[in-house]
Amino acid sequence: MNQPISKICIIGASSVANQIAIAFYKSGLEIVQVFNRTIEKATELAKQTASKPIDEFDLITKDADLYLVSVKDKALPEVLNKINDVKGIVVHTSGPHGIEVFKKKFENFGVFYPLQTFSKGNDVVISQVPFLIEANKNETELALVSLAKRISENVQIMSSDKRRQLHLAAVFANNFSNYMFNVAEEILSSHNISFDLLKPLILQTCSKAVLGKPKDFQTGPAFREDYKTIETQLELLSDNENLREIYRLITEGIIKQKKYDQL
Amino acid sequence: MNQPISKICIIGASSVANQIAIAFYKSGLEIVQVFNRTIEKATELAKQTASKPIDEFDLITKDADLYLVSVKDKALPEVLNKINDVKGIVVHTSGPHGIEVFKKKFENFGVFYPLQTFSKGNDVVISQVPFLIEANKNETELALVSLAKRISENVQIMSSDKRRQLHLAAVFANNFSNYMFNVAEEILSSHNISFDLLKPLILQTCSKAVLGKPKDFQTGPAFREDYKTIETQLELLSDNENLREIYRLITEGIIKQKKYDQL
Repeated sequence: MNQPISKICIIGASSVANQIAIAFYKSGLEIVQVFNRTIEKATELAKQTASKPIDEFDLITKDADLYLVSVKDKALPEVLNKINDVKGIVVHTSGPHGIEVFKKKFENFGVFYPLQTFSKGNDVVISQVPFLIEANKNETELALVSLAKRISENVQIMSSDKRRQLHLAAVFANNFSNYMFNVAEEILSSHNISFDLLKPLILQTCSKAVLGKPKDFQTGPAFREDYKTIETQLELLSDNENLREIYRLITEGIIKQKKYDQL
Repeated sequence: MNQPISKICIIGASSVANQIAIAFYKSGLEIVQVFNRTIEKATELAKQTASKPIDEFDLITKDADLYLVSVKDKALPEVLNKINDVKGIVVHTSGPHGIEVFKKKFENFGVFYPLQTFSKGNDVVISQVPFLIEANKNETELALVSLAKRISENVQIMSSDKRRQLHLAAVFANNFSNYMFNVAEEILSSHNISFDLLKPLILQTCSKAVLGKPKDFQTGPAFREDYKTIETQLELLSDNENLREIYRLITEGIIKQKKYDQL
């Protein structure tokens, strides 16, 4: 473990795996193999990283310095189970899984978690993505931090417990806010109104959120406790019980937060 | 009504009124008066628009071409009631109120609605703000469209019914997504984790949302129907019943949407 990581085996060809592997490759590291159950996906990434595509667990090299496992969260325990007799560091990139998923099976293991939303066809600027690192040993942690710093300017060590809270916060900040945008789009399209109209508002909302504390920029009928408008809007949603309930609860949440902050 | 609007009286000194009045002024229009019940606020805006501050309804000039009423939604009916014997067009900037709030009291009236979130100390680029216009007469509508085009590149005519749907969509897209960011910030701060970590994610979420349809970029435990992670996250929220319920309902909404799109 005293030599730095240079030979990397990528296990899984998810969007996350793709973008990290390519960033590693561009930073001068050697990607030795790309494993995926579907060989076509492995081949696609292998081509971009001058590496070898494989689709059988038995073919995984024993002597890489790092095994980056980036598969569906649900599949992670099973995949880790199929990686055997490797000496390098094994890491996963999963938000929900802590370090305990390794069950101390390997000599060196850890978490290499990029806090970002990755989708196919939408590249992120990897250097701006925060990487949260954890490992079973200090020297492994240092090796992972130093590796992450090759591709990102924002690298931090964080325990699994804290990272679980961070992942929960990320679900609200990304998945749930995206659902709010989605609901807005659905309301508009069902009334033949272009979603383009909302885009400047969405961009403004986000640029404010990163300026300071989002609660300082809370506006709207709930924040103003404008119960007349709230009632009217609940009526507009009368054919969608789930949305009505979401509207009601978030409105309640905003009012509670405001009252709490005024205490 | 055949001459274009040139003399404008601003009623109310809200953030919206401020930014529109200043944009009007910069575009070469004459702001004749700024009314506000608090004279200090009227004076502040009047200074920036070379106009006269007033704090009594009786002092409102009778011969402006346009009266832009931008007050709290709740106060709008009462304020309109106090504007009398004016010949120019009276407009409001309110999202929830339709054109019916005027009760046909004036000869020319309409809606001049900027679809954006305005807060003090956070200027928006007015030229990019969509303005939704409606009026009681065709010629009034044309005059308002032509006025709005002096300050914005995005001007459209829209009925009150459609605008009410647009406003509802805007509540989801702005107020509710901002609440999601706020919840994320609260979760992090209660575990001593810096909100800065989430900022690249929030920016990415928004830049994706305006690229295409937000639902094409939906990710996360709900979208993957990863019930194990959902359960774990609900447990992390066990001390906050309102947030748990919001989490549960949005998760349900995301799963329903996905299943519906797969039909």
